[in-house]
Amino acid sequence: MELFQAVLLILVCWSLLVSAERSTYIVHMDKSFMPKAFSTHHYWYSYLLKSAARLHGDGSEPRLVHTYDNAFHGFSAVMSESEVSALKKSPGFLSAYPDDVVTLDTTHTYKFLSLNTATGLWPGSQYGKDVIIGVVDTGIWPESPSFNDDGMTEIPARWKGICQAGDQFNSSHCNKKLIGARYFNEGSRASNPDVNITMNSARDESGHGTHVASTAAGNYVDNVSFFGYAGGRARGVAPRARLAAYKVTGWETGSVESDVLAGIDQAVADGVDILSISLSYRRTNLYENPIAIAGFGAREKGILVSVSAGNRGPNAATLLEGIPWAVIVASGTVDRWFAGTLTLGNGITITGWTMFPARAVVRNLPVVYNETLSACSSSELLAEAPEQSIIICNITFESIDFSSVMSYLSQSNVRAAIIISEDTSILRSTDFPFLGVVITPSEAEAVVSYASSDNTPTASIDFQQTILGTEPRAAPALSASSSRGPGRNYRPILKPDIMAPGVLILAAYNPYSSEASIGRNIFLASDYTLLSGTSMACPHISGIAALLKAAHPEWSPAAIQSAMMTTANPRDNTNQPIKDMAFNYRLATPLGMGAGQVDPNRALDPGLVYDATVQDHVNLVCSMNFTSEQTRTIIRSSYNCSNPSSDLNYPSFMFQYETEENRTTTAQFKRTLTNVGNRAATYKVKVEEPKNATVIISPETLVFRKKYDKRSYSMTIRYTSISEIELETADGSLTWIEVNGKHTVRSPIVVYPRLDNDD
Amino acid sequence: MELFQAVLLILVCWSLLVSAERSTYIVHMDKSFMPKAFSTHHYWYSYLLKSAARLHGDGSEPRLVHTYDNAFHGFSAVMSESEVSALKKSPGFLSAYPDDVVTLDTTHTYKFLSLNTATGLWPGSQYGKDVIIGVVDTGIWPESPSFNDDGMTEIPARWKGICQAGDQFNSSHCNKKLIGARYFNEGSRASNPDVNITMNSARDESGHGTHVASTAAGNYVDNVSFFGYAGGRARGVAPRARLAAYKVTGWETGSVESDVLAGIDQAVADGVDILSISLSYRRTNLYENPIAIAGFGAREKGILVSVSAGNRGPNAATLLEGIPWAVIVASGTVDRWFAGTLTLGNGITITGWTMFPARAVVRNLPVVYNETLSACSSSELLAEAPEQSIIICNITFESIDFSSVMSYLSQSNVRAAIIISEDTSILRSTDFPFLGVVITPSEAEAVVSYASSDNTPTASIDFQQTILGTEPRAAPALSASSSRGPGRNYRPILKPDIMAPGVLILAAYNPYSSEASIGRNIFLASDYTLLSGTSMACPHISGIAALLKAAHPEWSPAAIQSAMMTTANPRDNTNQPIKDMAFNYRLATPLGMGAGQVDPNRALDPGLVYDATVQDHVNLVCSMNFTSEQTRTIIRSSYNCSNPSSDLNYPSFMFQYETEENRTTTAQFKRTLTNVGNRAATYKVKVEEPKNATVIISPETLVFRKKYDKRSYSMTIRYTSISEIELETADGSLTWIEVNGKHTVRSPIVVYPRLDNDD
Repeated sequence: MELFQAVLLILVCWSLLVSAERSTYIVHMDKSFMPKAFSTHHYWYSYLLKSAARLHGDGSEPRLVHTYDNAFHGFSAVMSESEVSALKKSPGFLSAYPDDVVTLDTTHTYKFLSLNTATGLWPGSQYGKDVIIGVVDTGIWPESPSFNDDGMTEIPARWKGICQAGDQFNSSHCNKKLIGARYFNEGSRASNPDVNITMNSARDESGHGTHVASTAAGNYVDNVSFFGYAGGRARGVAPRARLAAYKVTGWETGSVESDVLAGIDQAVADGVDILSISLSYRRTNLYENPIAIAGFGAREKGILVSVSAGNRGPNAATLLEGIPWAVIVASGTVDRWFAGTLTLGNGITITGWTMFPARAVVRNLPVVYNETLSACSSSELLAEAPEQSIIICNITFESIDFSSVMSYLSQSNVRAAIIISEDTSILRSTDFPFLGVVITPSEAEAVVSYASSDNTPTASIDFQQTILGTEPRAAPALSASSSRGPGRNYRPILKPDIMAPGVLILAAYNPYSSEASIGRNIFLASDYTLLSGTSMACPHISGIAALLKAAHPEWSPAAIQSAMMTTANPRDNTNQPIKDMAFNYRLATPLGMGAGQVDPNRALDPGLVYDATVQDHVNLVCSMNFTSEQTRTIIRSSYNCSNPSSDLNYPSFMFQYETEENRTTTAQFKRTLTNVGNRAATYKVKVEEPKNATVIISPETLVFRKKYDKRSYSMTIRYTSISEIELETADGSLTWIEVNGKHTVRSPIVVYPRLDNDD
Repeated sequence: MELFQAVLLILVCWSLLVSAERSTYIVHMDKSFMPKAFSTHHYWYSYLLKSAARLHGDGSEPRLVHTYDNAFHGFSAVMSESEVSALKKSPGFLSAYPDDVVTLDTTHTYKFLSLNTATGLWPGSQYGKDVIIGVVDTGIWPESPSFNDDGMTEIPARWKGICQAGDQFNSSHCNKKLIGARYFNEGSRASNPDVNITMNSARDESGHGTHVASTAAGNYVDNVSFFGYAGGRARGVAPRARLAAYKVTGWETGSVESDVLAGIDQAVADGVDILSISLSYRRTNLYENPIAIAGFGAREKGILVSVSAGNRGPNAATLLEGIPWAVIVASGTVDRWFAGTLTLGNGITITGWTMFPARAVVRNLPVVYNETLSACSSSELLAEAPEQSIIICNITFESIDFSSVMSYLSQSNVRAAIIISEDTSILRSTDFPFLGVVITPSEAEAVVSYASSDNTPTASIDFQQTILGTEPRAAPALSASSSRGPGRNYRPILKPDIMAPGVLILAAYNPYSSEASIGRNIFLASDYTLLSGTSMACPHISGIAALLKAAHPEWSPAAIQSAMMTTANPRDNTNQPIKDMAFNYRLATPLGMGAGQVDPNRALDPGLVYDATVQDHVNLVCSMNFTSEQTRTIIRSSYNCSNPSSDLNYPSFMFQYETEENRTTTAQFKRTLTNVGNRAATYKVKVEEPKNATVIISPETLVFRKKYDKRSYSMTIRYTSISEIELETADGSLTWIEVNGKHTVRSPIVVYPRLDNDD
């Protein structure tokens, strides 16, 4: 025992010593420099590492963590600074930077989507049949009913992935729905070598990856709910698509970029069609951002990459991931609301908000309104309340938080509470541990009046109600927390691209996780949970992209993205412009919602698309004023920079104006549209000019003689900045409208001040 | 206002005055005496009442409550004693007796039945298609999903019932599944005229009638459970049979026999095929018992009457309803158990008992064993327990009751409890308001040892588990509370007749009723609940009878009853004789379980049946030494008593021996079997003689030349009573076994001391 402890101590000290001196770096290499003597890139990178280590003091070798060869070329390794310096001298070296931590894009959450079995994208795509979505996230809970493979056909022969065994995970956990699962934590373990990983497998202890995967492509599951709310049949956006899980985060040792890169690289090698990435990076330089780098390689291989915008809103320029070759997804609300009905003894009924997580019985109980008690602000105060009654609480949540009130009520002998509050922030919490409903002060007037005047006032409360439609708010509305553009790493392309449902989305989860509570000590789990955030919006776009890929296998990722964006809806379900939950529901702008709310059925048949080749993206990167190494980190050596251009053929327009007062800025954009409709068509342009801007389109009519015809046009925009101090952002749109046809092809136009730094 | 109050006072006083002098009587009449001058029985009875009232002091008329004309002839009315005396002199008067209260047969409860879609009675009967079951009970909750009419065909034209409107009930509440609903409370209101009935309709505020009806013939409903226990697809025994609800009990004004009689009478008129009656009566004389009287009339019209035995067991002769022409149903357990799994940090798992009504999370929490705390006997004591821990409680429920322990735990800060108890009585409660599992002292040894020796003992508990099979007990076992024969009102025929599942049966319920609790103040409702009792067993037999009626429309009620009884199984799912939960699981006897557990698939094809005509039952009643009026109260005037016989052609044998010491009693029974098999068949007899009895069968072989052939045999039984003091009951059986065939036709034989009084 003593010997063992001594050895353990030495091991711990050694690992601390090493980690103090060395840390994980991600290294990008130009593989064309690889000497022919090396049979694989793995040997080459190992040799380079060994060479670099000669300079290291203690004679130990740096440890290779991952090698990358699909999405990009390079490796990650635990190295000292001096070893990195040595490595930089190696032929083919492009860049190296320290591994960084990764965070999830989730706060709390909900589900909805407008697809149907009769017409449109679902039947048009056979529900995403045989398209493979790779989810790079916290892994997967394979036993979730959402990953059953009922109705799934044989796995396509092109699939090269595996079902990697590990802790509580074996190869039989995959099936014809979940066709692959792998995990990546070498980088994470290298950063924290003294911490033990208890679940060393693709199993999703968090639940986040399971939620994302089931949202994108979960199979049909009947009678699912979140403790009686949002009940119904669960299914992913693409219920017949395949899923492959790449667990790159959620380790006790932390989450690092080198593992994310390894996961994406492997997903590309395995043969996924769509990459769904609901993760965030602090690193904003495109040549250091793992999703930008690996995503470029993925897109090069025809893979659409869907990425969450992040939950750093509502301020401008809070979007870190402004990657031009990925679809960046903002989060909106859905047309669903959770409620309880309060019925007074006099017959008046009020629909309040509740998420008490059980089918509680509150029938014809006495209602107590007492101005002193109604503060509901301490256990001592509530001890005065009559037992078995319904108490009216009038709460200002500036002075006391919702969970404290719930806790005081739980310790009392009252049966339920009617909580009066104007504060809508509590309307986002899915944790509602005491029986009650929240109503507004105006709704409360009738309640207080009845409770004060009737001799024996009584009330009943019905829980677990789910309301659909336009009340109390139109949907979608842009989520307040959804990160806003412009993107920090590249401004000339409008980001985010599009909005999808991301507020209170119901999807599968770790079934042992505590998702709700009753009282102070009872915690409840659910197979399905409600989460909110751009993490939940992203897999909606991944799933819709999978459906479009199944319906149009010949479309490039750029075409799929264009189809989604040009058909997106800037209006809500009351046909008014989409609002922004932040800033008191003012109008949302493209810097929050991109082109608008995705409309999958219209995306099936967009009429025209703005297509783009890999060379177009290379030309864009070449225009970015990066060093040659930085550029090649992204585009690799197989492309050249002979034709740099920042005017990517993109379905939206971002125009940066000079900020000096009364200065007029003019710019021209060139775009080419491809007719993906089945016949000849003529389109005429319609422009909504941004405030203080003039937009000229030439020509104003485009005639496509047959399918796949291409036609180009130019947009000249002129903007005069009004004031140097009050920098205005304005937006408009350009829409190509089919003559005698149903197609409309809309692009948002944003004018934005050119600044050196934001936020 | 003052005038109104005065009028109200007068009304109340008047009603009190009248009710003090008058009360409800049930009057049986011989309708053949009705003068031709009366166009309907209603006018005749009204005339008789008016005539009788002439003798009444205040000049007011007695009030007619119900008239009966289908199951029997007569009426109920609010009368004074003198009015009854006057009425007795009317021609055609048979009997009159005061209305009595009715009670429900339920304690607490569960569901199971062994029918399948591949073979046997379900497909053989088209799931009971078009058979109509009348449920005489507390009404119906029409919105229950069990009463949806998906898959139901048009209502048969022969149906004459209605969907009676009333409070919160209108005619659209019926459909092709629930084809009728009526309510009867005139008798109840007459007995309590000063009480207001708030739900004056067929709506089932209790839930009992809804439970019974859905057990008999509920439609298919997916994903039903009792708070996560017993989850699965719900369906009644005869999912394609129709239901008609007759609400006769569950009124604020009490439940009385006159209303029950009215309900049965109307059900007969409406055209039901099966009557399901889960009600109890204190009245034991057959000529006063409403089910005996109305049941006779129902059987005369070809209606099978299924009646719960009552929950007055386990002592002998606690069965009140020993009606020879009804199927009296005992209650048995099912092969299902509700559980939670306790997993200790050292990997040991124990399956304990829990019914905590939520998906609670108890994962890897510290386990505390402290001998003082383990009494768990007060809030003060438990205040000492560490917060967020799992406490071990060692409980002797002789000193403290389960619900008190649950209450103390709910007020503490511990997260969960491991409760050690040998007491199995708590294993019947469906209310389990605190998180925990109950384990036995022997199972507890490993837990206490681990908690005492490990430095950081932890445990997890998984809830909401449902276990099927033979562990911890074989099933069925006779429920301890099921009333035992012989029947109080007629001994020479063995009662109860048969056993069916009646312990913890899951079926539909009033969805607003509190069926479980969490902590001290949170009460929960469920669309489906677990109930126990012969009330739950009875509708299983009603449903099976409906299936048999659909499969064999030509069979008489006696044939259906015989088919169920002669194929019933006296063995449990471990192929051992069925045990009795009372008396420490000794063997159950036919006085508890009748012929044994119903086996619906065998009942479909019984080979032979003991049939009986209405005249046979008349002959039996005529042998009962009743007065002419008493006899005619049951059989009415259309039959005569020229051929009295107590030897009914019944599928069981009850032999009463003389009790003097060493006295030998001999008796002979005559039986006739009808071949309902499709071809000629030969049967040989096999007898298991009761202890101290000799049984001689003649002939010992019966040869049936074709379908519907009848053959008779005689059974001579000789018994010598051993001791006058220790009166023994013994049982055996007689089985006709088909030669070269699969049919066996079994009848229980019971020898029982002849006594003047029991209990």
